[in-house]
Amino acid sequence: MDSSFVTIHHGSGKKQAELLGFIAEQLGPAMMSTENDGGFVDEAIDTITTDSFTISPIFFPGGDIGKLSVAGSINDVVMMGAEPVYLTLSLIIEEGFEIQDLVKILTSARAELETSNTRVICGDTKVVNRGAIDRIVINTTCLGKTAEARYAVGRIETGDRIVITGPAGMHGASVMATRNNFEIDFVSDCRALTPLLNAVSGFKVHAMRDPTRGGIAQILNELSESSRKEMVIEENLLPRHAGVEAVAEILGVDPLYLACEGTAVLFCAEADVDALLINLESQGYSPSVIGRVGAETEGPLLVIRTRLGAERVLPMLTEELTPRIC
Amino acid sequence: MDSSFVTIHHGSGKKQAELLGFIAEQLGPAMMSTENDGGFVDEAIDTITTDSFTISPIFFPGGDIGKLSVAGSINDVVMMGAEPVYLTLSLIIEEGFEIQDLVKILTSARAELETSNTRVICGDTKVVNRGAIDRIVINTTCLGKTAEARYAVGRIETGDRIVITGPAGMHGASVMATRNNFEIDFVSDCRALTPLLNAVSGFKVHAMRDPTRGGIAQILNELSESSRKEMVIEENLLPRHAGVEAVAEILGVDPLYLACEGTAVLFCAEADVDALLINLESQGYSPSVIGRVGAETEGPLLVIRTRLGAERVLPMLTEELTPRIC
Repeated sequence: MDSSFVTIHHGSGKKQAELLGFIAEQLGPAMMSTENDGGFVDEAIDTITTDSFTISPIFFPGGDIGKLSVAGSINDVVMMGAEPVYLTLSLIIEEGFEIQDLVKILTSARAELETSNTRVICGDTKVVNRGAIDRIVINTTCLGKTAEARYAVGRIETGDRIVITGPAGMHGASVMATRNNFEIDFVSDCRALTPLLNAVSGFKVHAMRDPTRGGIAQILNELSESSRKEMVIEENLLPRHAGVEAVAEILGVDPLYLACEGTAVLFCAEADVDALLINLESQGYSPSVIGRVGAETEGPLLVIRTRLGAERVLPMLTEELTPRIC
Repeated sequence: MDSSFVTIHHGSGKKQAELLGFIAEQLGPAMMSTENDGGFVDEAIDTITTDSFTISPIFFPGGDIGKLSVAGSINDVVMMGAEPVYLTLSLIIEEGFEIQDLVKILTSARAELETSNTRVICGDTKVVNRGAIDRIVINTTCLGKTAEARYAVGRIETGDRIVITGPAGMHGASVMATRNNFEIDFVSDCRALTPLLNAVSGFKVHAMRDPTRGGIAQILNELSESSRKEMVIEENLLPRHAGVEAVAEILGVDPLYLACEGTAVLFCAEADVDALLINLESQGYSPSVIGRVGAETEGPLLVIRTRLGAERVLPMLTEELTPRIC
């Protein structure tokens, strides 16, 4: 690039070609070469997800919008039981955006793509006038192929154990802390969950979900609604992170409602859960059984059993607690 | 929807579910039902394109950002010789956006999807604070299956005739006119080019491109560069539109550099071109042969032969003439 900033002239013509070439160079082998506006698929794919990332700030402890936009869409595909194969990458950039920030974003996007053995099949750039967008927005669409079983909410059974692969709310807490200039000693869990496909393979895992917007409490409510089964979690089984809890307390938010971006909730048949936990641990996860799937219910019902034995309902979110978290 | 505006609370939780349900309702059968964050493909697809739409104003004569974002990605797939099958739809909405505008956008998106027999396989919504984005941005990814031949720039041959399916620059001129409050008596050519696949089937068409950003002059330069062949067009063969020319003159822009959004440039073997023109006409297009592919060239070279017989080079764009045109 012959300038330090993206200018409005990078929106079309020769300078757009220069920007596209620069992006391809940064992505290296993680970018498939394309001579058209799009790409041709050379592997059979069957699973598609799409997500736009509007996070602010774009750099946060443990990641940035580049890593997040790769991991985020990959995780949606992985949660559907598919191996990520291709990603589309569309950048909308405000004029004046610094090239060195673009380099950082693309470098971490590339690392995340390489970890998951996923390639960018096609991309797009738009440059908009100052003020038409806050810095940068990224859309990714991930295309995957089913690895083994099709994990689905319809397969969740009463008695299934609810397993979480790590502490809740680390992404949400780290972004909110950065936005509010709190000092923290932890980072976002932001990362692709692709290795989880192998880690759960062969076990009776019925469904998987990554608790992003709204956190574990929201996602369990949604799964309760769609599976029509009560979800029961135990307060003393929840993995806790002191830093996340401190941030959550200052913000007046329950950490169970804070977003994860590299942590999954799994629904596993009771008979398999002990072996699953051992396998997940051996693969580097920090899993915990946090509860179980209860009886049939009409509406969504998530109950937390407190340390004192009392039961409390964790409701579906009605208010947006943390805008632009992803 | 129980409010007239999109609020920040439509960003997650119950209210996001309400917004998603509303979108699904507006799209009707053009939206596949999905219980996950993504969708499962039930037809073999092999062609992918992605595009983000940041057009301003979002309503323009002949269309809006909804129609454009469906037609735009579909056209990229069609130009690669594939039939559009699925579309992903990701909306980023500024809080305060009017629901009635969302209805209009989704209604025209639906009409365009239905015309092309294409379904939304998965979607995403993000709501951002006021000022973080200018009203609405839409990303679409289109997934298609190859219909017949793989049209590609590498197949362009010296002697091929260059055919355009209608007058140039109608989209760019109509959007720029709206932005500048000019009164005009024509509309954008914005529409899906899906029927073109049948119209060119069986003819020796080597490549197709839709001249969007940068218009015909830019696209022919790009194709000259990648095919390493000179492109020669004849001024007196170019289909002209008085309204477009008037807008272009006021703006000080050559209409050949103004975007089309429903018009294609085709490269056809000379032997087939007369029959192709007749077929295109019978399918409702207004095609013209505007020139031919010349000899090998090192750099990009687009030459226009004027009415007086002089030759003039139409260069690649270096400056962005019309930001946020798509």
